Amino acid sequence: MADETEVRFGILGCAQISIKFCKAISKAPNTKLIAIGSRSLEKATAFASEQGLSDAVRVYGSYEAVLEDDKVDAVYIPLPTALHVTWAVKAAEKGKHVLLEKPVAMNVAELDQILEACEVNGVQFMDGSMWLHHPRTAKMKEALSDEQRFGQLKWIHSCMTYNPGPEFFKNSIRMKPELDGLGALGDIGWYSIQAILWSVNYQLPKSVLAFPNATLNENNVIISCGSSLHWEDGKSATFHCSFLTYVTFDVTILGTKGSLRLHDLTLPFEESFGYGTFSESSEVDYGKIEQGMWCPKPNEHVVETEFSQDVWMVKEFADLVGKVKRLEMKPEKKWSIVSRKTQLVLDAVKESIQRGYESVEIVMK
Amino acid sequence: MADETEVRFGILGCAQISIKFCKAISKAPNTKLIAIGSRSLEKATAFASEQGLSDAVRVYGSYEAVLEDDKVDAVYIPLPTALHVTWAVKAAEKGKHVLLEKPVAMNVAELDQILEACEVNGVQFMDGSMWLHHPRTAKMKEALSDEQRFGQLKWIHSCMTYNPGPEFFKNSIRMKPELDGLGALGDIGWYSIQAILWSVNYQLPKSVLAFPNATLNENNVIISCGSSLHWEDGKSATFHCSFLTYVTFDVTILGTKGSLRLHDLTLPFEESFGYGTFSESSEVDYGKIEQGMWCPKPNEHVVETEFSQDVWMVKEFADLVGKVKRLEMKPEKKWSIVSRKTQLVLDAVKESIQRGYESVEIVMK
Repeated sequence: MADETEVRFGILGCAQISIKFCKAISKAPNTKLIAIGSRSLEKATAFASEQGLSDAVRVYGSYEAVLEDDKVDAVYIPLPTALHVTWAVKAAEKGKHVLLEKPVAMNVAELDQILEACEVNGVQFMDGSMWLHHPRTAKMKEALSDEQRFGQLKWIHSCMTYNPGPEFFKNSIRMKPELDGLGALGDIGWYSIQAILWSVNYQLPKSVLAFPNATLNENNVIISCGSSLHWEDGKSATFHCSFLTYVTFDVTILGTKGSLRLHDLTLPFEESFGYGTFSESSEVDYGKIEQGMWCPKPNEHVVETEFSQDVWMVKEFADLVGKVKRLEMKPEKKWSIVSRKTQLVLDAVKESIQRGYESVEIVMK
Repeated sequence: MADETEVRFGILGCAQISIKFCKAISKAPNTKLIAIGSRSLEKATAFASEQGLSDAVRVYGSYEAVLEDDKVDAVYIPLPTALHVTWAVKAAEKGKHVLLEKPVAMNVAELDQILEACEVNGVQFMDGSMWLHHPRTAKMKEALSDEQRFGQLKWIHSCMTYNPGPEFFKNSIRMKPELDGLGALGDIGWYSIQAILWSVNYQLPKSVLAFPNATLNENNVIISCGSSLHWEDGKSATFHCSFLTYVTFDVTILGTKGSLRLHDLTLPFEESFGYGTFSESSEVDYGKIEQGMWCPKPNEHVVETEFSQDVWMVKEFADLVGKVKRLEMKPEKKWSIVSRKTQLVLDAVKESIQRGYESVEIVMK
């Protein structure tokens, strides 16, 4: 593919997730990594060498230098959450398209600054939630939308947890309020909220009420929390996110006639083998209690995929950037809206915790 | 097996669940059905004929008549919940051992009358929660108790639902406050609460707080509700029960080092084939995010069983009755305690709903 049809990426920061992202860029058919920047040239050089990046990749000792590079079309920003507003806004102002790691901002006010900068400068925005781009996700949406089989959606539960161990609690940026102050709520609760909103086609709940048991560290960073979410039409959802237990990436979605479950939302169990699975069930005969046949084993659906979900995300982002860059189309708004609604609900859950577990109404501003 | 070593059962009522129970008695090695009573002789005769019961089974036109039958050692009571206190107390007073369907009573005060009558009259009490007797349940407890693999228990979620359809909402006894006024909370929330308590070795939570979205019918019977439960040591649990969605019998239990899940708690997917399964996972390497290998596929455990869980329940109950009857041992208290704690938490959830979703402290009276 000729250079002009490729989207040329720069990366701000050598976070662990950047390793995964470099690989995704190299696999996506329409992108190319051309620059990497870190706060020190030494760190950036070491990263480039460890990851075996091509000599053609420019290595910079500052984030600014990446933004100054005219060849860079788009930047991937995996910096700590508290730095997002600064660097995403600067990137947009330099005309760079923005692929921003989640959680996208400390709150919706910060996100609005980012989105406004993207809008004013005509650049594409997307957050780094990979699962939304896995072909499995579209297949699941088909299943949920089949009213004959699934009926009306009534209830969702999501559980996102992992136990990163004592070293993490001492040293991780996710434990430091000045860096990633949203803790488990931002890191993995983000996915629960997003999956819940995705399930209901991004209809915002009317209110949220955090469970009265959030665990916060000495700096008020959330280590474990959960919430119920309530819609005016009677739908409801609950989620639990925590850094205190073994890994779960669970979502259960219940309709009047069917159910859909998966246990590996954010990282498919066997993505490297090119597929994702989910289970779904419907059509049960409730008349047969005496025969013990009530609870049919769910159907396991296997969705094959050419790329892993991170590659799909990069490809989709690059496709959208390509349309802006070559066809002079307007940036696609969908991803800004998805991120903003997720952040609105996340903010409300945090507010509910801070207000001593009061119910918080969600108002679309 | 000679007659004297068998426990001779009478059944009060020809509910649908009685069909299942008759089969369980016929399969259990230490029991025999000898009497069935209904409010009308006609109904009881029809039931005996439809179920192909032996001519030796006495058929009575009243519940009293079963209790008056000196040959009856024990009674199974599947009557509507509101009638339990009357008939379980009468049964105990007649010296009959009591196997009582769940939910055991409308509230703990009623249950205490039943348990006192059993205690005073030296008869065995057990509620009809079959899953507790499946060999799978003991295997799951082994997995949870292995601190090397599971770590410390931190969080539990259970979801119990089914959608019995419009006919049920119009006519089921579970929709009538004078009969089964606990609705979905009693019918299936009972199992969620029991599974949660079972997970924590029956340690009562300090408080419960119902989710602010219970659905009640025009007679105040609960159609859908849920709650969070909180322990002093920081453990917590949530559950959701509903008659509005497709069937789920889910429990997820999370420890610091492992997880345990099953999706068919109350009725195993394939019980008729003689096994039950659960999935469990532990030992994950959180260092490998860039390789997408975080979320290992859980191990599926298959527990083979000679009998289905209903048969195991009847057998265990009859074993205990046999000890009282032949060895003059005292009745086993464990099952009274399990039922009572379940009812205490259930009462607290109901109270939380009635008080407009206030937190309710649980006090062991």
